[in-house]
Amino acid sequence: MYALKGNIVHAPKFGEVEITENGFITIDDGRIEGIYPKLPDGFSGIHVIDYSDKLILQSFCDMHLHAPQYPMLGMGLDLPLLEWLKTYTFKTEAAFSDNEYAKRVYARLAKELVDSGTTRVCMFSSVHTDATVLLMNELEKAGITGYVGKVNMDRNSDPCIQETTEQSMRETLRWLNGCDVFTKIKPMLTPRFTPSCTNELLEWIGSLAKERNLPIQSHLSENLAEMDWVKELHPDCEQYWESYAKYGLFGERTIMAHCVHCDDREIAALKSNKVTVAHCPDSNINLASGIAPIRKMIECGVSVALGSDIAGGAHLSMTEVIASAIRASKMKRIQSEWQTEFLSVAEGYYLGTTAGAKFFGFKDGFASGDMFHAVVIDDSNMCNAKEMSVMERFERSIYLAKKEDIVAVYSDGIKIK
Amino acid sequence: MYALKGNIVHAPKFGEVEITENGFITIDDGRIEGIYPKLPDGFSGIHVIDYSDKLILQSFCDMHLHAPQYPMLGMGLDLPLLEWLKTYTFKTEAAFSDNEYAKRVYARLAKELVDSGTTRVCMFSSVHTDATVLLMNELEKAGITGYVGKVNMDRNSDPCIQETTEQSMRETLRWLNGCDVFTKIKPMLTPRFTPSCTNELLEWIGSLAKERNLPIQSHLSENLAEMDWVKELHPDCEQYWESYAKYGLFGERTIMAHCVHCDDREIAALKSNKVTVAHCPDSNINLASGIAPIRKMIECGVSVALGSDIAGGAHLSMTEVIASAIRASKMKRIQSEWQTEFLSVAEGYYLGTTAGAKFFGFKDGFASGDMFHAVVIDDSNMCNAKEMSVMERFERSIYLAKKEDIVAVYSDGIKIK
Repeated sequence: MYALKGNIVHAPKFGEVEITENGFITIDDGRIEGIYPKLPDGFSGIHVIDYSDKLILQSFCDMHLHAPQYPMLGMGLDLPLLEWLKTYTFKTEAAFSDNEYAKRVYARLAKELVDSGTTRVCMFSSVHTDATVLLMNELEKAGITGYVGKVNMDRNSDPCIQETTEQSMRETLRWLNGCDVFTKIKPMLTPRFTPSCTNELLEWIGSLAKERNLPIQSHLSENLAEMDWVKELHPDCEQYWESYAKYGLFGERTIMAHCVHCDDREIAALKSNKVTVAHCPDSNINLASGIAPIRKMIECGVSVALGSDIAGGAHLSMTEVIASAIRASKMKRIQSEWQTEFLSVAEGYYLGTTAGAKFFGFKDGFASGDMFHAVVIDDSNMCNAKEMSVMERFERSIYLAKKEDIVAVYSDGIKIK
Repeated sequence: MYALKGNIVHAPKFGEVEITENGFITIDDGRIEGIYPKLPDGFSGIHVIDYSDKLILQSFCDMHLHAPQYPMLGMGLDLPLLEWLKTYTFKTEAAFSDNEYAKRVYARLAKELVDSGTTRVCMFSSVHTDATVLLMNELEKAGITGYVGKVNMDRNSDPCIQETTEQSMRETLRWLNGCDVFTKIKPMLTPRFTPSCTNELLEWIGSLAKERNLPIQSHLSENLAEMDWVKELHPDCEQYWESYAKYGLFGERTIMAHCVHCDDREIAALKSNKVTVAHCPDSNINLASGIAPIRKMIECGVSVALGSDIAGGAHLSMTEVIASAIRASKMKRIQSEWQTEFLSVAEGYYLGTTAGAKFFGFKDGFASGDMFHAVVIDDSNMCNAKEMSVMERFERSIYLAKKEDIVAVYSDGIKIK
């Protein structure tokens, strides 16, 4: 058992942060035991790691990102989605047929995730089975938890990366066999998106998900051209989400990224099917896709969390993604003639931490009994000229903290940075 | 005479970058002599600083920022403009009555500007004369060039910071007397904005500008509530800009920040009066003010450059402001149902460099005869797994470069970092 001492800031509810100044958070066997303004007498002997005046925050959950797009971070962003995929992205992903290359890139990605304070992920790999296992291995070694998926795509892609239907099925099974060795990183079925999977493949993935009780991740209603394309491919589906739902790919263990153009009917479907939305504001703006109506979704009771969506997103750091979500919500406010409320910093923080953690079975904020996931932020290198409250310093950290300011990271109760 | 060797990327025209790979830029007496793929024979003896494979870019121009708001960077951004001014900003600025405090904060700000590659500024100080001179001194010592203004405000402010009309005039003259010692940082008249200056004061500032041939900076049409307020205060003016124009504060040597809600008539007035617009996208979004129609302005021939507008903006780094301008333009594209073109990376770079430099009398890009202002970017700490062109590396630097990646900065021909 041990304790961390510092200014503890967590988000037990959407829109509310709880601050314990110069407080203690106690950890027992990797799990949070409690938060205290003063260490109770019974704990007087335990090891206390004193972070003094620093900020102790929940670590971040990145609910949607593409590992094989990491080498193109910050590039190609003058292109719209479908063109960007064809001329840039597929070629970048194709390079992951080389295992040595994959290992080198993924080791670097895992390190940068840890350095940035992201300890829980839902991540797309590429179609390559071996590279996917290598990715899972690098994440697990680095101490990151969550889900990774080998991508399935058997149509409408670039020949350099497209699978046959048979190959996609066979390789998915081979990949799942290789996942047993991992304890913190688990497999997630990953049909890329409706246009890149035949009906036969989607149906097979749906059966497999049911048979093995596996979670699912994909993309939904990101871009208007993409939505028109889905309508052509699935004339029987009134809306995009139905192309997943009819194959059992739209339920409680599903993450759907983007959901930019969901109307009331599609939002109601997200809610009634208990799907979690991964809102990816940086990517949606970079690719000029649109701004997801997440205020409406949240008010309707849909679970919304955040994703960096690298490399449509140009920021791996989830503090930057939270700030991006806040800015996107302000754009939405402007767009709606100031009728829609923007996200407060407290709300953005909740979406980047607690909201994602719930998908992995965590409770709210730093909750007793949950595995301990946290970052320690040292803001002493920022301009500290004026008197500031912990709340102000917390807000500033969301807007300004760089990975250099994140001086410690805990994942599953273990210090990994 | 000396030369820099590296990958030279500059923006001689809006939307075009010229790249000279492994080229040379020669500097004679602080001024650019030329750019060469190979060093001509006549220059064979000169000192060459070899930046090998690094990127040599134009340094950045920040055409609108508030120095005394630096201590509140990244804070208070859940508030709208007028409330944010009253409850947060004026109090932060009031602290600059303390000269020791001012010196400490401004030395830090000057260093961070240099570290971020900003070498030319148009900057607001506070109302405080002594602190303004201290600010100019710190900027000059750090090697930064441009304009700084003591703020005038004699109504509608917080008592902690408001001047009387007489005091504002007297202190402005005292400040101007103190400016003679500076060679790189020059004074710029700075009526805060129409609501905080009486007509008497605006008239006096207009006469002074004319008499001493001084440049002027202020705010225009940032926020709808502000615009209504100006209408009440100046019922004789059909539009906001006229409240400046009638006092001679709206001409070729004027910077107007924001211009978010300018309609066609106001845009035509900006054009015909040759006013330069400082577009501040990060700030305009943080304060949910709106998105300035800069594509339209540029098409109409208005001069548009960029400002960080700290601390409405949360980023001092102009690479982040350029990326913010690109994102804001993509929002504008979304808002206009994909009818408005977004800013390409090349266009954003032009706005953050050449467009601002022109206000200071510079020509286009790295032009022969202009004083040399440049940054050297080392992107070797980024993920360099795949083959990349210099154009791709340039784009990535705009999106991702941190001050740590800016390894050298030249201002007025002198290496200042």
